[in-house]
Amino acid sequence: MAETKDVSIIVSTLLTLLEEKKYPTIKEILVTMNPADIAAAFEEMEENRLPVLFRLIPKEAAAETFVEMEPDLQELLIRGFSDNELKEVLDELYVDDAVDIVEEMPANVVKRILAQADPELRQDINEILRYPENSAGSIMTIEYVTLRPDMTVKEAILRIRRTGFDKETIYTCYVTSYSKLIGYLTVKDLLLEQDEDTLIKDIMDQNVIFANTHDDREEVVKMLSKYNFIALPVVDSELRLVGIVTFDDAMDVMEDEATEDMEIMAGITPSDKTYLKSNVFEIFRHRIPWLLLLMVSATFTGLIITKFENALAAQVVLTAFIPMLMDTGGNSGSQSSVTVIRALSLGELEFTDLLVVIWKEIRTAILCGSALSIACFGKIMIVDKFLMRNDAVTLSVALTVCLTMVLTVMVAKVIGCTLPMIAKKLGFDPAVMASPFITTMVDAISLLVYFGMANILLFGV
Amino acid sequence: MAETKDVSIIVSTLLTLLEEKKYPTIKEILVTMNPADIAAAFEEMEENRLPVLFRLIPKEAAAETFVEMEPDLQELLIRGFSDNELKEVLDELYVDDAVDIVEEMPANVVKRILAQADPELRQDINEILRYPENSAGSIMTIEYVTLRPDMTVKEAILRIRRTGFDKETIYTCYVTSYSKLIGYLTVKDLLLEQDEDTLIKDIMDQNVIFANTHDDREEVVKMLSKYNFIALPVVDSELRLVGIVTFDDAMDVMEDEATEDMEIMAGITPSDKTYLKSNVFEIFRHRIPWLLLLMVSATFTGLIITKFENALAAQVVLTAFIPMLMDTGGNSGSQSSVTVIRALSLGELEFTDLLVVIWKEIRTAILCGSALSIACFGKIMIVDKFLMRNDAVTLSVALTVCLTMVLTVMVAKVIGCTLPMIAKKLGFDPAVMASPFITTMVDAISLLVYFGMANILLFGV
Repeated sequence: MAETKDVSIIVSTLLTLLEEKKYPTIKEILVTMNPADIAAAFEEMEENRLPVLFRLIPKEAAAETFVEMEPDLQELLIRGFSDNELKEVLDELYVDDAVDIVEEMPANVVKRILAQADPELRQDINEILRYPENSAGSIMTIEYVTLRPDMTVKEAILRIRRTGFDKETIYTCYVTSYSKLIGYLTVKDLLLEQDEDTLIKDIMDQNVIFANTHDDREEVVKMLSKYNFIALPVVDSELRLVGIVTFDDAMDVMEDEATEDMEIMAGITPSDKTYLKSNVFEIFRHRIPWLLLLMVSATFTGLIITKFENALAAQVVLTAFIPMLMDTGGNSGSQSSVTVIRALSLGELEFTDLLVVIWKEIRTAILCGSALSIACFGKIMIVDKFLMRNDAVTLSVALTVCLTMVLTVMVAKVIGCTLPMIAKKLGFDPAVMASPFITTMVDAISLLVYFGMANILLFGV
Repeated sequence: MAETKDVSIIVSTLLTLLEEKKYPTIKEILVTMNPADIAAAFEEMEENRLPVLFRLIPKEAAAETFVEMEPDLQELLIRGFSDNELKEVLDELYVDDAVDIVEEMPANVVKRILAQADPELRQDINEILRYPENSAGSIMTIEYVTLRPDMTVKEAILRIRRTGFDKETIYTCYVTSYSKLIGYLTVKDLLLEQDEDTLIKDIMDQNVIFANTHDDREEVVKMLSKYNFIALPVVDSELRLVGIVTFDDAMDVMEDEATEDMEIMAGITPSDKTYLKSNVFEIFRHRIPWLLLLMVSATFTGLIITKFENALAAQVVLTAFIPMLMDTGGNSGSQSSVTVIRALSLGELEFTDLLVVIWKEIRTAILCGSALSIACFGKIMIVDKFLMRNDAVTLSVALTVCLTMVLTVMVAKVIGCTLPMIAKKLGFDPAVMASPFITTMVDAISLLVYFGMANILLFGV
């Protein structure tokens, strides 16, 4: 039994044994380890030790360990493999895993992989590579169990026993007739059927839920999660079964998509590499575009302030409240936008809900804005006026700030909920419309409101 | 075949048929639908139609449909059920689903559920309710297949056939000896084993990976996703098998946890209810605490500005650059914090990486800060000085702004990466240390740097 959270102990053990050339002992340890854990241990080691260690992994676990490693280690190992060793690993890979690896490797490594792959595997890889990135076709596997409708349960179980070895999942079997998907059933259905002569067509479920090769992978994951399926069949435009997406790949996509959304919401161009694996220039390249864009767009706020310079010079005290107003506006807006973006990506919201959402946000904004204003009024009168004895803080100044607050929160929440929904409708990623972008807009608007209020309440313009 | 993305057509069909009392036709439609789709359709209907429609769902799909519905509909239906109807639905539920329902219902409904449940089910529900919220124990199911080590493959398959009906998954079977978990094997292993007389102990995998009942549910999901398991066994403190967590529940947890992280990062107290189901007061209650806290903490920025009022009065032009500096600082900080928070929650980062992370962020900050400064300098000289002909914008002002920019980005990135890691170390949720909180801190620091720079470069203090 092994629940390995910390790999450092196993790493040092393996390295010591390697130093002492105790290869049989290393083999005995590796045989007890899960491929994912071996891969994690490999990540912690010096690169020159890996080729030797990899050759000590039991044959049946080697390919799976290889799949679990990060692309840079995979590349390193492939470069060290003899043609024969490469072929051995490739023969054990599922097609979808082979495709993932090919997608990450530089051109010369890909060339070697395709040269060593079976003609059949090579063709399958090329087939899947043709599907658009992030489509159902690009993440599906083509190894699944098909049954014919006129088989008996007994024949079906025999077929699974005979052909199931190289299938990624045998637990959902698909029934096809002339390549068309006409039904499905689970191994549970087969095993729990008491009469072995029952025909498949009599017990299969004909209401198959499927995805199309060109569907977005996010849709596929949503369906798998909604229906609690182990695998979802993928069909081509003529409803012919061409692949399946299994739950484990769906979980990876789910994690990737959530990470991607968070990154985009924070103004970062998404990256496939983990943080620790990325070098400083890569991190820089993923962060600087938004920072530059947002800095330049902050020019507008600067221009607004310049325009009202005289007002500010007359009442310098107004400046002191600018950060608070801007931050509160930004925070209010990002609360709304993040809520809406997440609801959109989980499929809880549609564009048709736009008016419902706006109305909800307006009412929420009135509540939040009022509560904030009252608190802000109290804070200004108690802290700024009485405690700090700032004579420039008059009742009119406090009113100007508090009224601006209500309006800013309102504007921020309406913009925050509307922009992501419009972005989605126009076919953009709603996450782009998250806090950084909305903050810049809300900043400009809140300043305009602020100076407008000041003109009315303080300068009587 | 049915891939139902839009339920509105089916809803109107069902309602029309209901109006015309064509119950047999409704039954025929419902039998072709997946429970998740029936539940989605129910969500769109007026509440008074639901009890009648629910009774028309085929018996074997009724319980599953019930599980897929939102708590408010479940409550409505339970209140309408006769004791007998309630018992029928309860008898079909898996224990983990029954627990989920009990957790969402008000006390009087729970009382009725427990009264109608089988004594065994009632005991099981109470057992699971005792585990801490968000623990492995609280999300596990106790219906799984156990095998004895001395069974043959044939006996094992027979046992699955005899007892598998009410198990949530039969695909991974756990081998126990005196209740202790000693191994596992999959139905695939059983089916693909050619010799029916092979003993289970000879083909089982003894390296079982498991969770403990008190482990955090997030850990369980991480393990399931890492090892690509259909189910993960859960053991008590004496290594006795007490339940399993299946992949579909893990996917739900994964989605919930990602939503929760995004909400917390945007300064929203997480909520179990979907956005559209939450009323305005609930949304208000989840958003106002952070808005208030952040507004009050913006007092510091206000105080800093007040303190440097004279400098600002002398050089009003400085005010125009405050929003840009603050926003750039905020954006830089939130890029770092979101990256680190996500990496922490995916297990890619540990507290021991702190120095590596800080060093990486410092170098990234130097690159980002320099690029931003150069762009900013160009923008100030071209837009503000030459295009807008603002004479107050001198070379010294531009230098003050640009140097502040570099320092602000640096401070923002270091704070942004450090705080979440420290929070995690101290046992808090790192997501709390995301943009809103960091923005407020970075605002204050960037203003201090700004005025410090201005004192040196502009006023020669």
